[in-house]
Amino acid sequence: MMMTERTQANLLTIDQLDAEDALDLIHEAQAFKAGKQVELLHPAYAINMFFENSTRTKTSFQMAEKKLGMQVLDFNAATSSISKGESLYDTLKTVESIGVNVAVIRHPQTDYYLQLTQNTNLHIGLINAGDGAGQHPSQCLLDMMTILEQFNCFHDLKVLINGDICHSRVARSNAEMLWRLGAKVYFTGLKDWFDASLAKYGEYGDFDELLPQMDVINLLRVQHERINGTADAQFDESEYRRQFGLTKQRATQMKSNAIILHPAPVNRGVEIDDELVESPQSRIFTQMQNGVFVRMAIISRLLRFQNLL
Amino acid sequence: MMMTERTQANLLTIDQLDAEDALDLIHEAQAFKAGKQVELLHPAYAINMFFENSTRTKTSFQMAEKKLGMQVLDFNAATSSISKGESLYDTLKTVESIGVNVAVIRHPQTDYYLQLTQNTNLHIGLINAGDGAGQHPSQCLLDMMTILEQFNCFHDLKVLINGDICHSRVARSNAEMLWRLGAKVYFTGLKDWFDASLAKYGEYGDFDELLPQMDVINLLRVQHERINGTADAQFDESEYRRQFGLTKQRATQMKSNAIILHPAPVNRGVEIDDELVESPQSRIFTQMQNGVFVRMAIISRLLRFQNLL
Amino acid sequence: MMMTERTQANLLTIDQLDAEDALDLIHEAQAFKAGKQVELLHPAYAINMFFENSTRTKTSFQMAEKKLGMQVLDFNAATSSISKGESLYDTLKTVESIGVNVAVIRHPQTDYYLQLTQNTNLHIGLINAGDGAGQHPSQCLLDMMTILEQFNCFHDLKVLINGDICHSRVARSNAEMLWRLGAKVYFTGLKDWFDASLAKYGEYGDFDELLPQMDVINLLRVQHERINGTADAQFDESEYRRQFGLTKQRATQMKSNAIILHPAPVNRGVEIDDELVESPQSRIFTQMQNGVFVRMAIISRLLRFQNLL
Repeated sequence: MMMTERTQANLLTIDQLDAEDALDLIHEAQAFKAGKQVELLHPAYAINMFFENSTRTKTSFQMAEKKLGMQVLDFNAATSSISKGESLYDTLKTVESIGVNVAVIRHPQTDYYLQLTQNTNLHIGLINAGDGAGQHPSQCLLDMMTILEQFNCFHDLKVLINGDICHSRVARSNAEMLWRLGAKVYFTGLKDWFDASLAKYGEYGDFDELLPQMDVINLLRVQHERINGTADAQFDESEYRRQFGLTKQRATQMKSNAIILHPAPVNRGVEIDDELVESPQSRIFTQMQNGVFVRMAIISRLLRFQNLL
Repeated sequence: MMMTERTQANLLTIDQLDAEDALDLIHEAQAFKAGKQVELLHPAYAINMFFENSTRTKTSFQMAEKKLGMQVLDFNAATSSISKGESLYDTLKTVESIGVNVAVIRHPQTDYYLQLTQNTNLHIGLINAGDGAGQHPSQCLLDMMTILEQFNCFHDLKVLINGDICHSRVARSNAEMLWRLGAKVYFTGLKDWFDASLAKYGEYGDFDELLPQMDVINLLRVQHERINGTADAQFDESEYRRQFGLTKQRATQMKSNAIILHPAPVNRGVEIDDELVESPQSRIFTQMQNGVFVRMAIISRLLRFQNLL
Repeated sequence: MMMTERTQANLLTIDQLDAEDALDLIHEAQAFKAGKQVELLHPAYAINMFFENSTRTKTSFQMAEKKLGMQVLDFNAATSSISKGESLYDTLKTVESIGVNVAVIRHPQTDYYLQLTQNTNLHIGLINAGDGAGQHPSQCLLDMMTILEQFNCFHDLKVLINGDICHSRVARSNAEMLWRLGAKVYFTGLKDWFDASLAKYGEYGDFDELLPQMDVINLLRVQHERINGTADAQFDESEYRRQFGLTKQRATQMKSNAIILHPAPVNRGVEIDDELVESPQSRIFTQMQNGVFVRMAIISRLLRFQNLL
């Protein structure tokens, strides 16, 4: 996908954003966090279509839409006409016809959005809020915003991505964007879960060796719901914690100004000890707070492209 | 049901509307489409109670309510007290007591609304958004609006209704209203699916013979979810397409200014070929667009009766 | 729980409210019913998290929030991250981080809120809309408001609580609050369903003997969904009606200005005869109407504590 008009119309993958683009969006999000207000030129309508469970992302998008003054339409995947076999394209063409300006979509199928953007007549603004094991661009941007807030720049920052890398839509997006922004990326976690295609962004290493040098510890969620039915189904939580969990003891090895990120929901006592979730070095709830402002920035860009802002 | 106060208070069946009434509502809808704005006299509240799956109709009513400035309350049939055995009447009396002014209801039971309007104390405005194999008056009006937009009058217009007539709440309503408005109605589709009681509105004929003379081809949806468990369960889609589908080849036989209607969701490649859904003669997405304005007109009438507009 | 700041921040149990507090809230509710309007100082956001089925309470809270000018965020328990194993605390900490000011919660687990208020960092305003067989403070207050509206004071008023007392979150809250407000409480219903711990609030007696002296008949719902799977599963409705139902015949024994309350949904023909539900002495739909105003008062207090009102 090229850095063309598409970038203004939709946000589907992190590949659409070069470093400058990403920083623009983060700066806009920071302005919203500092109290910036906008006024819509015309009434504008959003719909949040989540085909996978979500609290955080769905609520966060709703909040962003409402803070921008948009009207939010209710959509329940289970009772939609998708249950009558309607395609995602036809469903979106429908809500576009009805007058919806922005659709936020989460879908279990990786790359679901390709069927929506290739050779079609869709004009509704699309935001990908997660596609299978693919992308989750607003999560990536809120992570970047949270890191920038702490360190003011990315250059030579050491970021460790730890966990279930191959099942994670956070891992790839963050690795790529951090690399593009000038940070140094490291990976750890079960060796089996490492994806060789990520090696171009950074090296795989031992958690305990890497930990004391890192500025950011980006934990990933053990996704029981994706692991189920695979060879990993026998997954041993206490063994995982022993090897890769950020325990209280390990946390003493962190640099004093290093921070902890986690996309949540957290499996307390697995990826991270209970007591660390709300510790001074944790930015887990700050990430959620920043998520609203990042999404306001993303949606604003789409609204501006449609002359609604 | 007579053309009395009831007509102003509720819209439950198309029988409530004579030709003049229907045209009034369509003209009001056209005014909304042209940009007419209204201002509520008091805050007004709507609830959309869908006991069957829907994307289009539910989203369309929500949009209409929001465009009129109403507040929309969220209702999820599966988690309502209906699951505790509460009757539909008691549920509606409840939302009325809570202060809701307009309730839009879709329900699988044909004629469900009779229990709500006979000898009861309900004052909330009711709109039927589909009852089993019964009525769907807002769908009928949006079809009429879409036809009128194309031809400017109904007199002697030839309209072919093609498909699953006996399972369809669109077929009967449209046939009756078209006949009342002065159009000539024809039917085609599986002979077994034709309902003799419709013969008064128009004749049944052969698709390929009728097609070249028609102004409007009103396709119906093959409703797998209603056919299931019946003798039709062995339904053969490619055979259906061969006999009654609007194929690319058949479409070449259409009059040059004839239009295609379909209530959607479309079974692409069954009732109609994929390439025709967004073709210049198709009005399928125009119907959805018009649906919002028709619903604004219907709701406005109820609000005016309640002195809220 | 003490009558401290907590009372201003949350409403979880009726124990938080002494008689004066309760009357303050009811008077505020009466002011809202009489047309009082308020203006938010800042945009304020509510979320209604119902982990049990509800029409009345959920819709009523939504209406109260909208009438106060709040923005309401959509939450569906079944599709939330609770389904991924996230704890209630983490879910609430999430919506707080996202910027929600007030969360209304119904949950099947009795005392679920203890995990939310003990040693935690939650600042979001919490309202308990029902916890298992525990409390339902807004229901209690709307019942009190409905009684006060009729009799103008509670002193020496005779109130009979009739029904499924041990399964009911209404019975205990109402008994305690009525006793605190100076009314005389009586109980009837299946002897097996009486809970000895309630004896301090009033005595258990025979329905037909008590009925003619009572000012308020507070019927309770037979909760099939809680009885199921217990010894009561063989529950005989017509036998229940014969012994404890408020039948048309029994109603003739009521004092002429006595009133009937029921938290609904009503099992018509079990706890109360069909014809009595909307009779002049019934306040069943008045309770629902008052519920909106009581909830406006409750939420206003939380918003004032947060400097949003």
